[in-house]
Amino acid sequence: MTPVAAAVDIGGTKIATAAVAADGTVTGYRSAPTPAERGPEAVLTTAADLVRESLGDREAVGVGVGSAGVIDPASGLVRSATDALPGWGGTDLRGGLARALGLPVTVANDVHAHALGEYWLGAARGHATVLFVAVGTGVGGSLLLDGRIHHGARSAAGHVGHVPVAAAAGRRCPCGADGHVEAVASGPALLHEYRERGGSAPRLQEVVAASEHDPLARTVLTEGARALGSALAGLANTVDPDVVVIGGGVAEAGELWWEALREETALGLVPALRGLPVVPSGLGSDAALLGAAHMVWREHG
Amino acid sequence: MTPVAAAVDIGGTKIATAAVAADGTVTGYRSAPTPAERGPEAVLTTAADLVRESLGDREAVGVGVGSAGVIDPASGLVRSATDALPGWGGTDLRGGLARALGLPVTVANDVHAHALGEYWLGAARGHATVLFVAVGTGVGGSLLLDGRIHHGARSAAGHVGHVPVAAAAGRRCPCGADGHVEAVASGPALLHEYRERGGSAPRLQEVVAASEHDPLARTVLTEGARALGSALAGLANTVDPDVVVIGGGVAEAGELWWEALREETALGLVPALRGLPVVPSGLGSDAALLGAAHMVWREHG
Repeated sequence: MTPVAAAVDIGGTKIATAAVAADGTVTGYRSAPTPAERGPEAVLTTAADLVRESLGDREAVGVGVGSAGVIDPASGLVRSATDALPGWGGTDLRGGLARALGLPVTVANDVHAHALGEYWLGAARGHATVLFVAVGTGVGGSLLLDGRIHHGARSAAGHVGHVPVAAAAGRRCPCGADGHVEAVASGPALLHEYRERGGSAPRLQEVVAASEHDPLARTVLTEGARALGSALAGLANTVDPDVVVIGGGVAEAGELWWEALREETALGLVPALRGLPVVPSGLGSDAALLGAAHMVWREHG
Repeated sequence: MTPVAAAVDIGGTKIATAAVAADGTVTGYRSAPTPAERGPEAVLTTAADLVRESLGDREAVGVGVGSAGVIDPASGLVRSATDALPGWGGTDLRGGLARALGLPVTVANDVHAHALGEYWLGAARGHATVLFVAVGTGVGGSLLLDGRIHHGARSAAGHVGHVPVAAAAGRRCPCGADGHVEAVASGPALLHEYRERGGSAPRLQEVVAASEHDPLARTVLTEGARALGSALAGLANTVDPDVVVIGGGVAEAGELWWEALREETALGLVPALRGLPVVPSGLGSDAALLGAAHMVWREHG
């Protein structure tokens, strides 16, 4: 039987698992709602049960986990998490799953795992230095250096939504600070801005659809993309990545958004970085699972 | 005789060399004006002559060089440089010095070398992940990850002056872009701002001295420091360093400047980074020489 790694993606609303072969083939995909309100033990139990279903009668070489929250890969603990996962901070993520499954477990933050998936099999393949940005409900990200996740001193690296941009001056960011790009470039920020200026749309998708004919929708999407591009240029000037990869739901906002993003990024780059590619995520919703599996294959492959 | 590394610091106005022992003891310090106008060969010859004087009859285990410009450590070439060193871009820095001196040569950008000096013997000692920022004529910097220089994909990492901040909106940065922090936080930017608002001072030092009693001087220094702090917070949120170390002439602008810098940095940090230390450079003008020597000792020590 082909050896597999068990991959786990723990988010605030959903837990997904799969068995991933060394070539990236995904089988046994399973998912279930995250029992967040029942606490961390229930989350771990659900994840372990899903892994068993994903594996069936196959034995895994190890388990890779991408999880929401600030995850310390050295201790295996969740350092902190948002209210989407009450009590998740402090959980022994690695130890809990290792005990439940009797397998070696490797853990990382889910956005880092997504980035690693892009490095293994997606838009960042073959690139040593990668700036990955996920634009959705929030703006998160990850730095890959020599193809490895840069976790940082407190396992908190990758908060790329929390950099200042002029367009966000005076806007309160969900983190509590003022003026961060997440406050103007996230999905909720774009939708809020559209409504504030008189537009009406139930979700961001409708704003994107309306941008075909609605100048307000075009303006809002363009301004959000430009704010993000300005921030990305600054980070790229500091990190000098081979490539910038953009994922998350807002990255599906269409060509208008992408053009504005790329144009503003280019305007902010120092001459040495001219021509820096800014490309969409090459993987679908499997990305974090693939990255989680890659962590296992690196250690056990 | 104690073995030594030869260290070279090549700037736009001055070349300095020294012999540095494995414990950081500096002897044989020499310096001379950079013969920039006579071209790259003259610069290399001057550097090699100074190294010979620094060494005297001692044999060095190798030569470490920190140089102005974008320096590619892999090829040993200068990728590009500013007008301060005409023709420096394209120079075979490593090969030229290796041929002249008959010694192995290791090269890096001078700001990276300064950061590495801080890691070895200065304010960043013992810290794996370091964000170093030099605030002077420009705003430059360096990331150290696991105690190693992060050079980036094009050897251009560390352009930390070229990140956006709200206070710089509409200001032209020396790099050609708009809105970068260097445009409001560098020494020349502070002096320009002071004069623009009606102040009179020949140099930044006089603005700093005037800040004891002159509200305009206080305002200008505080605003520059706050702009820098805002940028630093964003970079720290992305990189999650153990420590932020600030060097360069502007970092000697006094307690007022430091208080504003630290306060604004703290305001922009995500909760996971609270308490991040922001400290002054612990080394004097020897810093880049020490970092250059450290590159040698790592390879040959």
